[in-house]
Amino acid sequence: MFSSLTSLTVDIETRAVRPRRISVLGATGSIGESTLDLIGRDPSSYQVVALTGGCNVTRLAELAVQHRTELAVIADPRGYATLRDALVGTDIEVGAGEEALLEAAGRPADWVMAAIVGAAGLKPTLEAVRQGSLTALANKECLVSAGDIFMAEVARAKTTLLPVDSEHSAAMQAMAGCRPERIERVCLTASGGPFRCWSVDQMRAARPDQALNHPNWSMGQKVTIDSATLMNKGLELLEAHHLFSLPVAKLDVLIHPQSIVHCLVHLSDGSVLAQLSCPDMRTPIAYSLAWPERMAAPTKRLDLAELGTLSFEAPDEHRFPALRLAREVLDAGGSAGTVLNAANEVAVEAFLAEKIGFLAIASLVEATLAANTGLTTSRRGSVDDVLAIDAEARASARSLLARFASPGATG
Amino acid sequence: MFSSLTSLTVDIETRAVRPRRISVLGATGSIGESTLDLIGRDPSSYQVVALTGGCNVTRLAELAVQHRTELAVIADPRGYATLRDALVGTDIEVGAGEEALLEAAGRPADWVMAAIVGAAGLKPTLEAVRQGSLTALANKECLVSAGDIFMAEVARAKTTLLPVDSEHSAAMQAMAGCRPERIERVCLTASGGPFRCWSVDQMRAARPDQALNHPNWSMGQKVTIDSATLMNKGLELLEAHHLFSLPVAKLDVLIHPQSIVHCLVHLSDGSVLAQLSCPDMRTPIAYSLAWPERMAAPTKRLDLAELGTLSFEAPDEHRFPALRLAREVLDAGGSAGTVLNAANEVAVEAFLAEKIGFLAIASLVEATLAANTGLTTSRRGSVDDVLAIDAEARASARSLLARFASPGATG
Repeated sequence: MFSSLTSLTVDIETRAVRPRRISVLGATGSIGESTLDLIGRDPSSYQVVALTGGCNVTRLAELAVQHRTELAVIADPRGYATLRDALVGTDIEVGAGEEALLEAAGRPADWVMAAIVGAAGLKPTLEAVRQGSLTALANKECLVSAGDIFMAEVARAKTTLLPVDSEHSAAMQAMAGCRPERIERVCLTASGGPFRCWSVDQMRAARPDQALNHPNWSMGQKVTIDSATLMNKGLELLEAHHLFSLPVAKLDVLIHPQSIVHCLVHLSDGSVLAQLSCPDMRTPIAYSLAWPERMAAPTKRLDLAELGTLSFEAPDEHRFPALRLAREVLDAGGSAGTVLNAANEVAVEAFLAEKIGFLAIASLVEATLAANTGLTTSRRGSVDDVLAIDAEARASARSLLARFASPGATG
Repeated sequence: MFSSLTSLTVDIETRAVRPRRISVLGATGSIGESTLDLIGRDPSSYQVVALTGGCNVTRLAELAVQHRTELAVIADPRGYATLRDALVGTDIEVGAGEEALLEAAGRPADWVMAAIVGAAGLKPTLEAVRQGSLTALANKECLVSAGDIFMAEVARAKTTLLPVDSEHSAAMQAMAGCRPERIERVCLTASGGPFRCWSVDQMRAARPDQALNHPNWSMGQKVTIDSATLMNKGLELLEAHHLFSLPVAKLDVLIHPQSIVHCLVHLSDGSVLAQLSCPDMRTPIAYSLAWPERMAAPTKRLDLAELGTLSFEAPDEHRFPALRLAREVLDAGGSAGTVLNAANEVAVEAFLAEKIGFLAIASLVEATLAANTGLTTSRRGSVDDVLAIDAEARASARSLLARFASPGATG
């Protein structure tokens, strides 16, 4: 009956094997769907505790029924009645709004996928960590904006954070079992995005549709623009710093257009351990789900002979200043990561609305950091502090927008 | 005083930290010298028990004095007097000949480097394993010719075999902590040698000086010719099979001209873990020396941005039949590996002496295997059996030599 031992929990006391209790926060997004795809292939090994969604009530109801969850919560309170009606006749509990979201996140589970996008994911993810679940982390803000607070909570709960980003999952896999002092360098790879070979002048005139044309991954608009500016990799440097307690001097970025090697860990004996795979988020999700074991995942297998060539180059921080900004933010510490992230969100939004040009994204972020040294160095003790700093940084970035308005702006 | 914790042994009883007792069999060869180079950089962490050499008495005496060994043994009995005279006035014990070699190998030590080349390494390496040392294995014959006997002894002694070949060390590093049933494929890389892009006709006319022109590694003549025929990789498939208990269906070879990625381990979730490094044997030696920890090694660090490109292609088993022969030998089991290895040594010797052409190397090996099915399927219980089969296979290969005599043979 229980075919996959790796996805089962063995109770030491009774030696009884029981299905693992898992929750998925952000079930209707791409990571949530992929997670449930894996779980659905071996349903007897899992018991789904809670599923939450943002606003897609119909899909959430479908998933809740399909995976026989105990609790389904829609974040948008306006979705409550629709969700309740859709689940009438089932024994699935229904909730809506922030309180219900936190209750879902805090409901005891062995493993929680934290895949709520943006600042909205901060409190629910923290709640999952607090109750001691193994937490698979797909939300960037937890580490970028609130890394110190978040990692302190992980330590307090004596749990393990399992990164779901392909680069950080790769880092965790490649450094498995290695003592931190033996790690000389952790090198995250970046595809280089659509503008890898563009000149500064070409980049200055780049339009949103060109920036959204990512060579390897199909992702949301925000992260695709972040890939084009390399801010995505800058944010990942911040995440890696918190996840692995690595100083900025040990963190590096390598441009690798094929997106096959996701991370390289350089060790003190000259060995470099790397994780490779075809681009498919189900691989890092499966690693987090089976950790510390491995499970089967139905992904395309890597065939290097078929691919033929892997290429690598150093990033050009002149054309892609986001990497330099991320390093400066790492050096600054404090709340600089929160300000960077908030300013970048405002800048990307403005670029997509054609209010500023492509190069102005990094310029606006840099100007916001420079204009808010009080904010970046402020100390904070809670997620509410972080959210307040985030709001203030966004307001500041918006007030600076006019300075970077593109001559051809249509907005 | 003891700076590197990773290279020290902690005595559980007394909690006292003492230097690790190590021996190097084959100390005057390239692997032995590299091992002692690493040990010499942190002398207070190691106590050298025994050093052995083949015939280079002068160098052995120098190393014995430099590393304050307890025992120095020269395999060639004619070297005894010279060695004794060179070590007069020291308290180093001196020995010569096979008995003394076995005594050196069997002297209690925490870690033994088994780097005696060829069939001569079989008995001393087995002796080191028997006394329970962690054994770093640089001798190919132990696994190729006597893999079953050897691995049974490793299991009996409850010790660990640490491969020093760069590909097998890479495999061990990349599969660290992974359960065998989660490994889908282990892929050893091969540079492809100097004839990677040559046609069959060009290869037929290839001369020894051309075959000895290896693109990446500087090695002995025998192994360089084995790299040109890909027999080296065939032998490594046999070694990997025994080392990691992997069936032939899970073992593969990938041509990778830059020799940077040494092995790729494909896992059930789509992840591939790989070990990379600049070509320097001190990296796998350091891994074996510090295992299960890591130590510092003064090797050139890998810079992929500087390298730019890594390329991969499937091996061409038409031009390089050695890989097919190795697979057939793996399927056959029994003593087929012993016959393959013996016939290949005779063939390489004949090629270097310009008695047969380059393509005849594999042909002679294949003919020897075909002519000795009684021998290849014979069962054997001891190293003496293996040595007898080896001798019989060599005689058979020599008797078949004339059939493959090159038209332009000079010998």
